[in-house]
Amino acid sequence: MVSKAEDFNEWYNEVVERAGLTDKRYPIKGMNVWTPWGWSAITNADALMRREMARTGHKEVYFPLLVPESEFMKEAEHIRGFEQEVYWVTRAGKNELDIPMCLRPTSETAMYPIFSLWIRSHADLPLKVFQICSVFRYDTKQTRTFLRVREIHFFEAHTCHADAEDAERQIREDLSIMETLGRELCVPYLILRRPEWDKFPGAWYSLAADAWTPGLRTLQVATFHHYRDNFAKAYNVTYETPDGGREFAHQTTYGMSERLLGAIVAIHGDDKGAVLPPTIAPTQVVIVPIPEKGRQDVILSEARTLAAELREHFRVEIDERDVRPGAKFYEWEAKGVPLRIELGPRDLAAGVVTAARRDAEGRTTIPRSDVVSQVRDLIRRIQEDMYARAEGALRSAIVDIAAPEEARDAVNRIGWCGNEDCGHQVEADTGMSLLGSPYPPEAYEGTCIVCGKEAATAAFLAKTY
Amino acid sequence: MVSKAEDFNEWYNEVVERAGLTDKRYPIKGMNVWTPWGWSAITNADALMRREMARTGHKEVYFPLLVPESEFMKEAEHIRGFEQEVYWVTRAGKNELDIPMCLRPTSETAMYPIFSLWIRSHADLPLKVFQICSVFRYDTKQTRTFLRVREIHFFEAHTCHADAEDAERQIREDLSIMETLGRELCVPYLILRRPEWDKFPGAWYSLAADAWTPGLRTLQVATFHHYRDNFAKAYNVTYETPDGGREFAHQTTYGMSERLLGAIVAIHGDDKGAVLPPTIAPTQVVIVPIPEKGRQDVILSEARTLAAELREHFRVEIDERDVRPGAKFYEWEAKGVPLRIELGPRDLAAGVVTAARRDAEGRTTIPRSDVVSQVRDLIRRIQEDMYARAEGALRSAIVDIAAPEEARDAVNRIGWCGNEDCGHQVEADTGMSLLGSPYPPEAYEGTCIVCGKEAATAAFLAKTY
Repeated sequence: MVSKAEDFNEWYNEVVERAGLTDKRYPIKGMNVWTPWGWSAITNADALMRREMARTGHKEVYFPLLVPESEFMKEAEHIRGFEQEVYWVTRAGKNELDIPMCLRPTSETAMYPIFSLWIRSHADLPLKVFQICSVFRYDTKQTRTFLRVREIHFFEAHTCHADAEDAERQIREDLSIMETLGRELCVPYLILRRPEWDKFPGAWYSLAADAWTPGLRTLQVATFHHYRDNFAKAYNVTYETPDGGREFAHQTTYGMSERLLGAIVAIHGDDKGAVLPPTIAPTQVVIVPIPEKGRQDVILSEARTLAAELREHFRVEIDERDVRPGAKFYEWEAKGVPLRIELGPRDLAAGVVTAARRDAEGRTTIPRSDVVSQVRDLIRRIQEDMYARAEGALRSAIVDIAAPEEARDAVNRIGWCGNEDCGHQVEADTGMSLLGSPYPPEAYEGTCIVCGKEAATAAFLAKTY
Repeated sequence: MVSKAEDFNEWYNEVVERAGLTDKRYPIKGMNVWTPWGWSAITNADALMRREMARTGHKEVYFPLLVPESEFMKEAEHIRGFEQEVYWVTRAGKNELDIPMCLRPTSETAMYPIFSLWIRSHADLPLKVFQICSVFRYDTKQTRTFLRVREIHFFEAHTCHADAEDAERQIREDLSIMETLGRELCVPYLILRRPEWDKFPGAWYSLAADAWTPGLRTLQVATFHHYRDNFAKAYNVTYETPDGGREFAHQTTYGMSERLLGAIVAIHGDDKGAVLPPTIAPTQVVIVPIPEKGRQDVILSEARTLAAELREHFRVEIDERDVRPGAKFYEWEAKGVPLRIELGPRDLAAGVVTAARRDAEGRTTIPRSDVVSQVRDLIRRIQEDMYARAEGALRSAIVDIAAPEEARDAVNRIGWCGNEDCGHQVEADTGMSLLGSPYPPEAYEGTCIVCGKEAATAAFLAKTY
């Protein structure tokens, strides 16, 4: 395998394949097959999201995939934002359809006509729903597994509120959910308010969670949009106020996708393969019996007893195949299993098992009698260490620069007057994207990197995926 | 609400709406919105399927939604079977696509080209995977919620085997899974081998699970297809045998859909609304506090304590809204919650709670101290009684007839020589469908209802959805 340090892009392609997270041989570019391993990992992440949604009173729904052209066309900015990248169904059987239908690129236009029926009065607010589904975007840039695909495994929460302030509170709740998820998935990020020209089409403002990858680019892994009443006006989402008036609802969305899995692979993988955090690893602990001639039965039976014991607490696999242990190690390392436990004749004699963390070198010995609590402890430490390392990498990627020519393959912090022209200018000068300014806003002393006037804010500049 | 006995079809439409299982106001016919209540019910059913799949060694996957025309066109019978009902994506952004892509009507043509890459040798067999996803069929008959829709919530298991016998064993495993699910979902059925002209396009033979509904029609709720090596030949799914030869794999599929939820509503619902089995009910127990002036706080606090206690074992909701108890009863009955618990001042004084089964008349009193075990018992009995009642209805719907003019709105059992002409003739004479013969085959003494020759088998004749 090519080394991560030498050629990150090529390494990324190889590691995804070697880990068996996806099969890219499906005959449509950008539409990949979710293998059992990959599907288990992403649906474990979905389960974390569902838990957070339940905790915060969001209800799960499922809206149809297809959106009639007439509904899709109701919000002008939204159309302009997506018109180049939606797929259209124009034919059914042998019939041309009277009204073409698009495959949802996101579900505002599918949901909001129905929200306008669901919401009658202020008592129906806030409305908080989410769905986990495929969305489709005909992205013409080069596709890349999990990071830029055309059928996207997607999470989208949609909420409606009585006013902009309550929608604002929702955004804060979303950010706190994201904080929990970022820790659990071992993906640290910066929350940035996107500049005006990079908002979601139809949004009042857009926040994004940007992770830092060893590809020396940032990766947007989540977005949070405050729509004010912009979509509500297009789709007539109104409610009766306590005093009998009618007001438009204020709306928000919170989106995440399989990019989170791509971020995990990119950030934590190494030259042996993927490194999955215990939270989402389909197998958290793999047990590899180390055979000895004449004692195979004893060792296998002990390994099975161990597996049964651990299975009550963790996701456990026992690898009983008739293959050399070294080949098994190699394979489970490539797949990213957080913890390997070896059980051989010497371990057996000494009343121990041997544990190897995927995210660190070396092996440790664990007393057999204390195996559950020590494995629990190891799993917790793997989780914490993986996050801490990624967090350290993100922090050290942030560099302050004072002139466009100083921009590096890093997260460049600049001063910015907030003027759109200066923003575009620095993007042109550096070939990088202006990601936006810290959110919540932070005090910043300095001058605009372009015009030299007093900076209104810090802003971040980086190459992006 | 119209009565179920008077006008089943109209009743069905109303009950689905009153239960809030779906919202039919989405602007595409046959594509409905899954509300939180409906989505929770169907995904509870999905969870039962996932449990059975894990138990039997099937792995969950997810294949892309779109299938290129070139792949879709490889198996001739399959194309002919679906060409009238697939949706085609022909445009992306502003571009006409070179190769149109269809929305999967089922996933054989998406999966099998990849299976041909996954399977190398006999050691890779059997391959057992499943997915739960939306499939799309442009059905031109009248749409009906859950029973005939165009975006279908679908379960599909696909397996590959070394030979026809092993594929046969798979079908038997599928049937035993179905037996478990049928009991849990309270949907009894007959397993019938479909006549040749009604097989799945491309199958060697097709079995179906047909339920009986109070609409006096049967409803196909699951199918089991043995493909032999028919698709394997079209998609080149081969394996190396132990002696170094190459053979085509033999394949099966097992399909189910949201029709199961339709069957539950149709079979168990009554003039008050839906009646959901505890296995899938989003809320298994609803607690309704019965307020008394001046003692509201005490009652509410006792109700919350009760809810917390029950929640450790069941899916529990407490209805604290400021609405008359009668209105609450009405609403939860419409939604189909299996068990209602009332807690009022008299219950409190007597140290009891009052329980009302959704599937039966009357109320019972439960000692507060024994509430968990008695609720568990009630839930179990609701489950069993619902199944038993439906099973009884299915059994009594089966009538033996000796001539086409005797055919009733029932499951008519006839003698059949097995000849296709006689099959079509009896369908024409009765306006009913020949559903096929019992599986596994049963001995039958009698003559063919059409030609009078010795019957090869019994067969069933009914109107269908």
